[in-house]
Amino acid sequence: MQPFELSLTEASRAVRARELSPVELTESVLARIAAVEGRLSAYVTVAADAALAAAARAEREISEGGPRGPLHGIPMALKDLIDAAGMPTTASSRVRAGHLAEHDSGVAERLGAAGAVLLGKTHTHEFAYGLITPQTNNAWDPGRVAGGSSGGSAVAVAAGGATFAMGTDTGGSIRVPAALNGVVGLKPTYGLVPRTGVTSLSWSLDHVGPLTRTVQDAALVLAAVAGHDPRDPASVSGPVPNRFRGGDGLRGLRVGVPRNHYFDRVTPEVEESVRGAIERLAELGAELVDVEIPMARYLQAVQWGLMVPEATAYHERSLRATPDLYAADVRILLEAGELTSAGDYLRAQRARALMRDVWARMFDGIDVLAAPTVPMTAAEAGQEAVEWADGTTEAVSDSYVRLCAPANITGIPALTLPVGHGRAGLPIGMQLMARPFGDATVLHVGRVYEESVAGTGRLAPLAVPLAA
Amino acid sequence: MQPFELSLTEASRAVRARELSPVELTESVLARIAAVEGRLSAYVTVAADAALAAAARAEREISEGGPRGPLHGIPMALKDLIDAAGMPTTASSRVRAGHLAEHDSGVAERLGAAGAVLLGKTHTHEFAYGLITPQTNNAWDPGRVAGGSSGGSAVAVAAGGATFAMGTDTGGSIRVPAALNGVVGLKPTYGLVPRTGVTSLSWSLDHVGPLTRTVQDAALVLAAVAGHDPRDPASVSGPVPNRFRGGDGLRGLRVGVPRNHYFDRVTPEVEESVRGAIERLAELGAELVDVEIPMARYLQAVQWGLMVPEATAYHERSLRATPDLYAADVRILLEAGELTSAGDYLRAQRARALMRDVWARMFDGIDVLAAPTVPMTAAEAGQEAVEWADGTTEAVSDSYVRLCAPANITGIPALTLPVGHGRAGLPIGMQLMARPFGDATVLHVGRVYEESVAGTGRLAPLAVPLAA
Repeated sequence: MQPFELSLTEASRAVRARELSPVELTESVLARIAAVEGRLSAYVTVAADAALAAAARAEREISEGGPRGPLHGIPMALKDLIDAAGMPTTASSRVRAGHLAEHDSGVAERLGAAGAVLLGKTHTHEFAYGLITPQTNNAWDPGRVAGGSSGGSAVAVAAGGATFAMGTDTGGSIRVPAALNGVVGLKPTYGLVPRTGVTSLSWSLDHVGPLTRTVQDAALVLAAVAGHDPRDPASVSGPVPNRFRGGDGLRGLRVGVPRNHYFDRVTPEVEESVRGAIERLAELGAELVDVEIPMARYLQAVQWGLMVPEATAYHERSLRATPDLYAADVRILLEAGELTSAGDYLRAQRARALMRDVWARMFDGIDVLAAPTVPMTAAEAGQEAVEWADGTTEAVSDSYVRLCAPANITGIPALTLPVGHGRAGLPIGMQLMARPFGDATVLHVGRVYEESVAGTGRLAPLAVPLAA
Repeated sequence: MQPFELSLTEASRAVRARELSPVELTESVLARIAAVEGRLSAYVTVAADAALAAAARAEREISEGGPRGPLHGIPMALKDLIDAAGMPTTASSRVRAGHLAEHDSGVAERLGAAGAVLLGKTHTHEFAYGLITPQTNNAWDPGRVAGGSSGGSAVAVAAGGATFAMGTDTGGSIRVPAALNGVVGLKPTYGLVPRTGVTSLSWSLDHVGPLTRTVQDAALVLAAVAGHDPRDPASVSGPVPNRFRGGDGLRGLRVGVPRNHYFDRVTPEVEESVRGAIERLAELGAELVDVEIPMARYLQAVQWGLMVPEATAYHERSLRATPDLYAADVRILLEAGELTSAGDYLRAQRARALMRDVWARMFDGIDVLAAPTVPMTAAEAGQEAVEWADGTTEAVSDSYVRLCAPANITGIPALTLPVGHGRAGLPIGMQLMARPFGDATVLHVGRVYEESVAGTGRLAPLAVPLAA
């Protein structure tokens, strides 16, 4: 096994045991990037020299005093919405030509303090406003979409081009590409990870979180980046949840299985894989509880009713100054936002307040909600719509948002982890959600599941032979 | 002196000393209401029998176990936006015909638990959406406006028709009528006093607070009604500020005197009285510090940009169902709210966030900001506009909102107290503001001022002879 194939947890153990140096690991990952980038196009910028210098510095620090923690010397990538001092934050947009970030974002600062090695910046759907990431190809089948908007981060992690990566999630933008590329993605509780220095899509729905190869890895990254930052007005003070609940099993844990919404208009292979994984949770000791998802028919209107005007407000000036620099799909959404009335926006805000309350009551009866992350595997590039068995047609983007949006609206933690493959060999993700600040609970359940099945945390098999 | 003339503090001392019974006090206040209501029209409903029964109950309780606290047996009124179980909450509107409140509001509950005696419900500008209270006449001159929207509460307290009263304040609605009727009004820090069971005008700007005859009285009422209520999403948990800072003087206290905004377009008599009161604060030991009010030119746009769409969202259904039941001025404002774009509302929200930050920095250099409450004394009934010395014309409502709105936008505590009279004998108010949760500081400064001057806490002199 080559170093780029190691999960964060494995690489971290090897570094600590002095079996692997940060420079070897970083060199291996950079070589892997060189081998696969032509096919995948996950990165906007690879800062190879700076990464090697940072790895050498980490190596010196570790040989002198041992590692500062599990991220010390580990190479990682940032979605190109997240500022890193001295590098442009392009947001994968022509609007940002000539941009240069003066300061580290909150998460870059914390990852830097933990000793992580920045490899570069990964592609996003332009300004995170879409679920495809058209510049980037799926790690399992380059003819299919990467998913988005954190497509570059997911593909880099899935293909061995980063040991872990950071993404952002406003309506599923971490979880969708994670699920479509067979990796783990965590959208933490709203306010837990600061968004300082991160380009906003919709501030009341935006979250920053990790994409990794295992649930255990996600917990390690969360521990490094979570915690109060007064520069983000939504950042929550108070203690960071423990990474894991105690205990190894799931006994005493109530897992909610949705009767409605989450299994509606889902492909049979996705339903089968996720229901199989939920059965596995029961075998591991969890009690399964049927639950009704409240206010489900308002979810889509609320998500779009909040996101569209907030995005337009953020882009107001550049949309007026240089509309033609935006991609057509993004420009149309931003222009649509100019037509939203304050009443529509306020109705969405009020519905969200009600939704938070009824979801909180739902979680009185369960510890975790288990469901598909997305209703289908990766669409083919260029596919615009999907036809469902009930005869309805849905835009691909709408279908990818549909099961992810509730956690953005309510701010609850949501983890996606791979639980199988469809007939075309494409990965399928299961989503685990909990009440606000229940991040440790979803990570616990995910880790127990992951340890009970073989072969998780591996790279996309189509990509591995490229470098082997 | 008759019992209705006593301040809350005086009445409370007399009750505790068994020199005055709650029944005597309540009878005196009810008689006073009977004498002055025809001239003032402060009340929507006077519940005389229920008040006398409550007073008799308080009298028994006090004779058995002593008073539970300073409000036990004290007669008070609620603005008719504030629910009291078993009574209609009319909001002084035909829209509310047939309404009946099933439950006490949060403040009615707490005042009831403290033993206060509910006299009835006072007039508001319809749904609190205005600064005049057209049903009610000024206690000092019935040909002049009461101010609003808590006009009934201010006039009742000023005329001896209630020992204290509660009001609400979205853009000055406690402070404007308090200032125009020569009483004390406190808009506490946003989130400190719960709004549960209080009809909303604009939820992000709405506050509930007391109208009293002295600053000391306001502190007693605040102590009874402040504190966390999970039913109000904006209610802040954590300790309630002490009623007063320690010490009797103002030494070491920095009082900010605005260089801009608060003394612009203010009548000479208001400027003279308030500057005189500020000089008095300096004589009492305070250090005066000139301050620049930041972002002053955005204040009006932000106040209206937040209030108008939020009010329309609240009234959406009844505005469509029964538009003709609203008074014309209120209906026009509500209809205007339908034209606001989400972009305008979001711009106002973002400006408010910036404003909170720059105001917080301003308070790094001062403890209290002292300024006029309103730029002129009570306007004549029917007067629509005011002409200023600089040649500009301003709507009376706009002029009454102008100096009060900053504390609503930023959520800071703001106290008004009487500091003099204009040439027509009408009262003039000074406003004291502090950083969020600095309620104890404004109360302390107000009380020290009040104790240093003679003749505060008395009734409107025009009204006294009526009953004498």
